[in-house]
Amino acid sequence: MKIVGEGRVGTAIKARLAERGVAVAAQDNELLILCVPDSAIESVARGIAKGPWVAHMSGATPLSALEPHTRRFSVHPLQTFTKRRGPEQLDGAWAAVTGETAEALDHGFWLAETLGLRPFELSDRSRVLYHAGAAIASNYLVTLYRSAARLVEMAGAPADALVPLMRRTIENGFELTGPLARGDVRTVEAHLEAIRTYAPDLEEVYRALAKATVA
Amino acid sequence: MKIVGEGRVGTAIKARLAERGVAVAAQDNELLILCVPDSAIESVARGIAKGPWVAHMSGATPLSALEPHTRRFSVHPLQTFTKRRGPEQLDGAWAAVTGETAEALDHGFWLAETLGLRPFELSDRSRVLYHAGAAIASNYLVTLYRSAARLVEMAGAPADALVPLMRRTIENGFELTGPLARGDVRTVEAHLEAIRTYAPDLEEVYRALAKATVA
Repeated sequence: MKIVGEGRVGTAIKARLAERGVAVAAQDNELLILCVPDSAIESVARGIAKGPWVAHMSGATPLSALEPHTRRFSVHPLQTFTKRRGPEQLDGAWAAVTGETAEALDHGFWLAETLGLRPFELSDRSRVLYHAGAAIASNYLVTLYRSAARLVEMAGAPADALVPLMRRTIENGFELTGPLARGDVRTVEAHLEAIRTYAPDLEEVYRALAKATVA
Repeated sequence: MKIVGEGRVGTAIKARLAERGVAVAAQDNELLILCVPDSAIESVARGIAKGPWVAHMSGATPLSALEPHTRRFSVHPLQTFTKRRGPEQLDGAWAAVTGETAEALDHGFWLAETLGLRPFELSDRSRVLYHAGAAIASNYLVTLYRSAARLVEMAGAPADALVPLMRRTIENGFELTGPLARGDVRTVEAHLEAIRTYAPDLEEVYRALAKATVA
């Protein structure tokens, strides 16, 4: 097996395979795992002589990006990775496995499980929709925190105080509380007035999310 | 001490005070804590004879809602509460304490600490801005999850798979990863196309948050 790419994901995967005693060689004629940026997958795949299995770890990229290879699959760990952590980042995360044959899916499930991931099958045509959901859940959670932290700090309160609140919102199974759950229009209007005064650029986010919440 | 109101917050607070051995009586001439809906605070406060300290636990409501009482303060636990849990919900949460005199603040800090909360001072005029931040962090986190879960399920993947991703996003200190962090416009455009096709009502949320993310 050979890992191509030494970014956040490639590094964690390499370390995990070493922990599990899976031999990773510089040259490999069995399986090549591309952990390169999405935009580089096509050109890297084209540069590999046909023969071995070729896989990518991208969320939104179709399997066709691995042309001319037909022995191919994808494993996308549904996780956010940081360089400050090691292979334990994979523990407990799920992974979307895409393959066009039973053999390809077998390879994908084997790789995911070897990495410590919980695999599920994802069709190639659904990858972008799935990845849009993942990006909303993870990337926009950062945006939500940053927006909330800005308001809370402007009010003179510590942004750290939001963290136990956000953790518990997840622990409570995303049970909705607060003014929108109570139909408390007066408080929502007061929020909007404060946002217009102190952080007018956040009004659009607040309104769009309010609409989606009550929909 | 007397607790008025038996909702999510009032129940948790009453149970916590019992755990701590603080006597809660039906009649009290020292401190009344109003755990009633925001819209009921004014009328309940007006119905109480002047004399004891009167406090509310609301996030956005000003102290003036406690008129005619002048011995007054507010403690707002920065937490989401569910009826399925008990007083341990207070543990680890922060609390905004508002008071107009040193004595009022002392009472507020004492109450917060007795409840197991981590108090910070919040000025009365900043309450709405602070509460808007809290609502964004907690209530819109629910909206974010529900939106993401919808897309992921439409793609045939389990919504539960989002939970370890969201937890880790918090654990990693809200470090931004994904297409917007990489400046990967192609993937963002692909997300938008998929959302327009399968969940067009979410396009506004996606766009507003994308704009706030790169701002």
